[in-house]
Amino acid sequence: MQMSEASTVGQHSLAGADQALADGVLARQRRALAKAITLIESSRADHQVRAQQVLASLLPHTGKAIRIGISGVPGAGKSTFIEALGIHLIERGHRLAVLAVDPSSSVSGGSILGDKTRMETLCQREEAFIRPSPSAGSLGGVAEKTREAMLLCEAAGFDVIIVETVGVGQSETTVAGMVDMFCLLQLPNAGDDLQAIKKGIVEIADMVVINKADIDPRAAQVVRAQWNNALHMLRHASPNWAPPVITLSALHKEGIGDFWAKVEKYRQALTPTGEFEARRQRQSIDWMWSLIDSGLRQYFRNHPAVRRDLPGLTQAVTQGRTTPAAAAYKLLGDLRTDSPSE
Amino acid sequence: MQMSEASTVGQHSLAGADQALADGVLARQRRALAKAITLIESSRADHQVRAQQVLASLLPHTGKAIRIGISGVPGAGKSTFIEALGIHLIERGHRLAVLAVDPSSSVSGGSILGDKTRMETLCQREEAFIRPSPSAGSLGGVAEKTREAMLLCEAAGFDVIIVETVGVGQSETTVAGMVDMFCLLQLPNAGDDLQAIKKGIVEIADMVVINKADIDPRAAQVVRAQWNNALHMLRHASPNWAPPVITLSALHKEGIGDFWAKVEKYRQALTPTGEFEARRQRQSIDWMWSLIDSGLRQYFRNHPAVRRDLPGLTQAVTQGRTTPAAAAYKLLGDLRTDSPSE
Repeated sequence: MQMSEASTVGQHSLAGADQALADGVLARQRRALAKAITLIESSRADHQVRAQQVLASLLPHTGKAIRIGISGVPGAGKSTFIEALGIHLIERGHRLAVLAVDPSSSVSGGSILGDKTRMETLCQREEAFIRPSPSAGSLGGVAEKTREAMLLCEAAGFDVIIVETVGVGQSETTVAGMVDMFCLLQLPNAGDDLQAIKKGIVEIADMVVINKADIDPRAAQVVRAQWNNALHMLRHASPNWAPPVITLSALHKEGIGDFWAKVEKYRQALTPTGEFEARRQRQSIDWMWSLIDSGLRQYFRNHPAVRRDLPGLTQAVTQGRTTPAAAAYKLLGDLRTDSPSE
Repeated sequence: MQMSEASTVGQHSLAGADQALADGVLARQRRALAKAITLIESSRADHQVRAQQVLASLLPHTGKAIRIGISGVPGAGKSTFIEALGIHLIERGHRLAVLAVDPSSSVSGGSILGDKTRMETLCQREEAFIRPSPSAGSLGGVAEKTREAMLLCEAAGFDVIIVETVGVGQSETTVAGMVDMFCLLQLPNAGDDLQAIKKGIVEIADMVVINKADIDPRAAQVVRAQWNNALHMLRHASPNWAPPVITLSALHKEGIGDFWAKVEKYRQALTPTGEFEARRQRQSIDWMWSLIDSGLRQYFRNHPAVRRDLPGLTQAVTQGRTTPAAAAYKLLGDLRTDSPSE
């Protein structure tokens, strides 16, 4: 009975305090939401168990928001854009949560969203919830917390989730892997497209936004044409969506409506074909396997026989005294011969 | 005593037939080498055990060749180039083995090196050994066999190993991960550099060779300048090596000496700094971990409790009834609760 096994997962009964927390999230209490996210971000083992139980109980109430990733280099105007977008959406009856993925925040003290004054107007609105990046260290860790915080925000009734990230290293690919639509925020500088091509993020962009177009409208049009060329050269993931390139000025609140119209068009284009839902399912399965892979590595490294043999075999491989295949074979054999509880 | 554990790995005593095989390889007998590679490529479990034993016994005689990767799209002139290079090297006292990595060969029947007549002159020479790509299916499988075949060729006294691959998907990164120097063979077509940047292979190129430069010398110079620009923009792995861009004509045997001079210069630049050896050590450790990771996945998937729970949990995650984290946690817990031998 595989299904009964699996379907019990979401049906823990919660302890009193945690039940109150879950109820508070569902009742759209900001404090409860903030507290639940803090619980999820905690590295304490007992907190993690409780967090997973709270999350499981809220799961039926998640998934109804549209999840949008916004990436751009420092100075691209992400905060100004998100603030303008947020106000635009609130005026139209939406509720907006803004999260961040910034693996460098534990070092730098939080380069994005850390300073809430950067979104002054937005953070005073009841319809908006802004949360800086968890400072959990590794990108994988930060991403996992953010994915779970996203689910909590959905349970708290936010129907638009923005995940902000800086264009550094793997963080863009990671964010693209947790949102419905991934948008690149660019400055009207020629040559940026080459950087994006180089980093392989042209393939993952569902929309390109050229901000600060008011400063030099002519340059913005040139860059827009370059981006259209770059996107045209590459086959995008969906035959039903050609990633648009738009220009706007977040500072002057010009083009925000156009941006949102494209988001709605995207959802309308890919929902009937099943691609919208299929992307989420693929993301969930990928996420599960990435957690399994890192768990397997940990299980492997903690195994007593592996701990005993790994240093010597690593050295033997490095010195060419044994082949990588022979070493791997021996270490994998260790898993079978000794009990991990020894 | 970790070291005694590890150092015994290479010291199996071989069965009679396998001892004769290993001796034949060391005695530089072509038939023995071909037979040993066939043993390595076999998917039979008993063959694999024997192959690893033969390989382990030959390990002290490996590592003395220079390993060069040659990549290029179909039509770039790889075969003509390798043939010209091979003859050039043989005339200077070298012995040359040519292997191929082509994960598509099991489907296409072997698009590279499959037809030996493509290197007519070279394959008649005693000093050259040409072996088509193993048709093992996955890129990982093909790569593993090729790495091991490379070691056998070194034991058989070949001092130059060429690993040829087509510029498709991940195969270039894979080949760059098993050779000392990775060379891109390009046609004098403007725009090729953009493709290479897009695929992230500019970063892994240690040299760029523009072939067929005789057809349009002017275009070749333009493309050469473009490549120099592209390479200049990116910081290369070593501060002691700026990847050169050379033009040549393999058909007219022009520029082959220049190519080889660059290879020797590369080795001379990176050997005293320790980078040459460090790259090989890193490749071996990476290879070991990639075999461990795939072994762990297999161990996981074969575990009785995982086999029981995985389908239901995968479905629950897909349908949003449980979180990826909860499912991963449950499945990793399965490894601990049940014995794999149940």
